[in-house]
Amino acid sequence: MPETVNDIEEQKAAARAWFENLRDDICATFEAIERDVEGADEIMDLAPGQFEQKSWERPEGLKQGGGGVMSVMRGRVFEKVGVNVSTVFGEFSEQFRASIPGAAEDPRFWASGVSLVAHPRSPRVPIAHMNTRMIVTTKQWFGGGGDLTPVFPIEQDTQDFHGSFKAACDAHDESYYPKYKEWCDEYFFLPHRDEARGVGGIFYDNLESGDWNADFAFTKDVGKAFETAYSDIVRRHMNEGWSDEDKKAQLKKRGRYVEFNLIHDRGTKFGLMTGGNTEAILMSLPPLAAWE
Amino acid sequence: MPETVNDIEEQKAAARAWFENLRDDICATFEAIERDVEGADEIMDLAPGQFEQKSWERPEGLKQGGGGVMSVMRGRVFEKVGVNVSTVFGEFSEQFRASIPGAAEDPRFWASGVSLVAHPRSPRVPIAHMNTRMIVTTKQWFGGGGDLTPVFPIEQDTQDFHGSFKAACDAHDESYYPKYKEWCDEYFFLPHRDEARGVGGIFYDNLESGDWNADFAFTKDVGKAFETAYSDIVRRHMNEGWSDEDKKAQLKKRGRYVEFNLIHDRGTKFGLMTGGNTEAILMSLPPLAAWE
Repeated sequence: MPETVNDIEEQKAAARAWFENLRDDICATFEAIERDVEGADEIMDLAPGQFEQKSWERPEGLKQGGGGVMSVMRGRVFEKVGVNVSTVFGEFSEQFRASIPGAAEDPRFWASGVSLVAHPRSPRVPIAHMNTRMIVTTKQWFGGGGDLTPVFPIEQDTQDFHGSFKAACDAHDESYYPKYKEWCDEYFFLPHRDEARGVGGIFYDNLESGDWNADFAFTKDVGKAFETAYSDIVRRHMNEGWSDEDKKAQLKKRGRYVEFNLIHDRGTKFGLMTGGNTEAILMSLPPLAAWE
Repeated sequence: MPETVNDIEEQKAAARAWFENLRDDICATFEAIERDVEGADEIMDLAPGQFEQKSWERPEGLKQGGGGVMSVMRGRVFEKVGVNVSTVFGEFSEQFRASIPGAAEDPRFWASGVSLVAHPRSPRVPIAHMNTRMIVTTKQWFGGGGDLTPVFPIEQDTQDFHGSFKAACDAHDESYYPKYKEWCDEYFFLPHRDEARGVGGIFYDNLESGDWNADFAFTKDVGKAFETAYSDIVRRHMNEGWSDEDKKAQLKKRGRYVEFNLIHDRGTKFGLMTGGNTEAILMSLPPLAAWE
């Protein structure tokens, strides 16, 4: 029987607990990958990575607070992977109130979420991103998604990644997948390069169907769909070798990733402009990137 | 006897010719540095670099046009140095008119300028930036400046860099240097890191004293002051060796440089949002950069 919570404080607690639970689960899955890799000469002299955690708190201001935990692993399959969980509350400044649902009436907000960016060492293993969150103003909603950025796209990987999200979406509402896939394609696009960030995935925001428990269940399934699909793709390619040319292509692709995150990503901009934790926000940047 | 031009079309032609002349001069100076380096084992197996030029044109639209020339050198002292000259004209879109002097009355503009970013191979040689430009709307003005970003600041370099700009400023107006130095410090600052981009220099904009010839002469002197000061500093350090730790520190500093340019730099934002030439605008990005 699915868990049913009705009180807003219980909902907040349940969402927060889930994001932390998903983080723990993904970290364990990625650490197992680190132990299991057995090919790829380039990395076999390195030790399997383990996540390290670092917590941070928002600077105490009037009526605002909260904080988060950054989990970072610098391993052999994952050159750098960061999983951040944060739960913060406060008041939106004047400049943001108009653009945030329910904030014009009352500027107070509460937000909790998990976000992940993985930069594998191998150019054969795609870069990936996942984020899910619950926001409460005078309204409340869920948002999130995940997208895949291979240096060398493989049709089967793309199909499987999308297939996993489609199955998660279809189990809740058949209108979700086509809508959220398109939203992802529109969002993760670099207009100044006239190119997509990667091969897409799904992106959703402002999900408030009227049934909180259903929206929460969907959000959980999105996180699990990402974890399953991405870890399968990583395992599929982690034992392959690569050339110097492949590595160069990866560093250039990472340069584009930096451009997207610093120029276009709303979460990054929003975080930096609202005095978020810079180290946690910029955890998404690759360990090394190149430009021509 | 200084050149005196009074007609706006002559002024535009003279400014454009100067920016191209300064570019040629700086390129020759930097190519001489490439030939003259004789220490630094790390780079002596590389050939001296030479600039390569690539011209671009704005996509033809109604009442807009122009273009520019990118000069790029990938050498042994300069891992990557780009000098862009562009001369463009058109109409500002609605969203920009209010914020640009003289554009509310009539959206047409003409702009010409030179901009330079140098990323040396050696962590001992500072990164540098210089830009000067003339803009014409219903008003007309000059702007520009230069700033130095050493990985390991050396007091003498900082003093000499500032001294050269101070001399150029003082020859025109003693109020310029203190004002433009402060403007530079304010502008080249990363609030999200709470740190300065480097050791500063000068920055000025909207310079329209009422005497175009005087403003033009000042703008020329700013360009020459940069060329002299920076090439002296490069020659001072170009034969020094460096360690792997130094290189790591440089890659991290370059990461901060990327952050500034993509998150904060008005020229970059403005260029990308107005459909400028992406390759020319992002020429400022380093060949390789790192994040922790």
